[in-house]
Amino acid sequence: MNKIVLHPIGIIHSPYKEKKDIPIQGKFKSEVEAYIELKDKYIKGLKDLDKFSHAIILYYFHKSQREDIEGRPFLEQKKHGIFAIRSPHRPNHIGVSIVKIKSIKENKLYFTTVDVFDGTPVLDIKPYIKYFDEQKDVVCGWLDKHFKNGNIPEKTIIK
Amino acid sequence: MNKIVLHPIGIIHSPYKEKKDIPIQGKFKSEVEAYIELKDKYIKGLKDLDKFSHAIILYYFHKSQREDIEGRPFLEQKKHGIFAIRSPHRPNHIGVSIVKIKSIKENKLYFTTVDVFDGTPVLDIKPYIKYFDEQKDVVCGWLDKHFKNGNIPEKTIIK
Repeated sequence: MNKIVLHPIGIIHSPYKEKKDIPIQGKFKSEVEAYIELKDKYIKGLKDLDKFSHAIILYYFHKSQREDIEGRPFLEQKKHGIFAIRSPHRPNHIGVSIVKIKSIKENKLYFTTVDVFDGTPVLDIKPYIKYFDEQKDVVCGWLDKHFKNGNIPEKTIIK
Repeated sequence: MNKIVLHPIGIIHSPYKEKKDIPIQGKFKSEVEAYIELKDKYIKGLKDLDKFSHAIILYYFHKSQREDIEGRPFLEQKKHGIFAIRSPHRPNHIGVSIVKIKSIKENKLYFTTVDVFDGTPVLDIKPYIKYFDEQKDVVCGWLDKHFKNGNIPEKTIIK
């Protein structure tokens, strides 16, 4: 299998139009709201998702024009392997965010903890399931020093 | 944007050759080990990932031949929207698992908490970052009743 073809199932409407506005992760600007507008044919797929508090959304980093193997994350100057950072400039431009579900109305899923551009194509929505997805004894490599004592680092906006 | 073309970056070698062997989630058979064999050109991308305890892996459900809009999960007979369950038979056949990193040697990433078939194509590897990915006050819709009092339901194997 050399090629995998996917199709957007919808689009994200977000207040973030420019790179400088986006937080490095949505958790750091948790009041901001956005929504996914699904194609009509997928409306039934949302059934019962409104009973979950969080969803995992998969989307396409449509603004990235390159594939790096190493890169510098926003929090530091040191280079790391692309699979040890969350940069969009990766092989296969797929992004993953865990978002907080606010409400679902017809083909629209409203959520907070947003960290994506307006107009981002959506590939999938999954329920966040704590019984599967929560982890114990998590160690976060180069990031731990930036979040010492539970502090949020000053540099949480991309540019 | 109507079509998105991706390329596998590697393959998963897992002891699960048949559907009946796979746990509904890797956490329920946590001792089982598997590994990702990356294409050689991506080796440098793994740099510093060995300092993380967990990774998010994205892969292609290559055995799924259909796209459902609703489906029955393994734990119950009731139908739910495809975006409220983790079934492989979804629009865009992408799977997400959070795995525990055991070790990294050259182009091989060894991990536990496995829930995928042997031969599954890998699309991406991301560091699991608790500062971004951990969630509070999680509610899990139709699943909560199956995991009452922290119990693991009896039916944790797919078939």
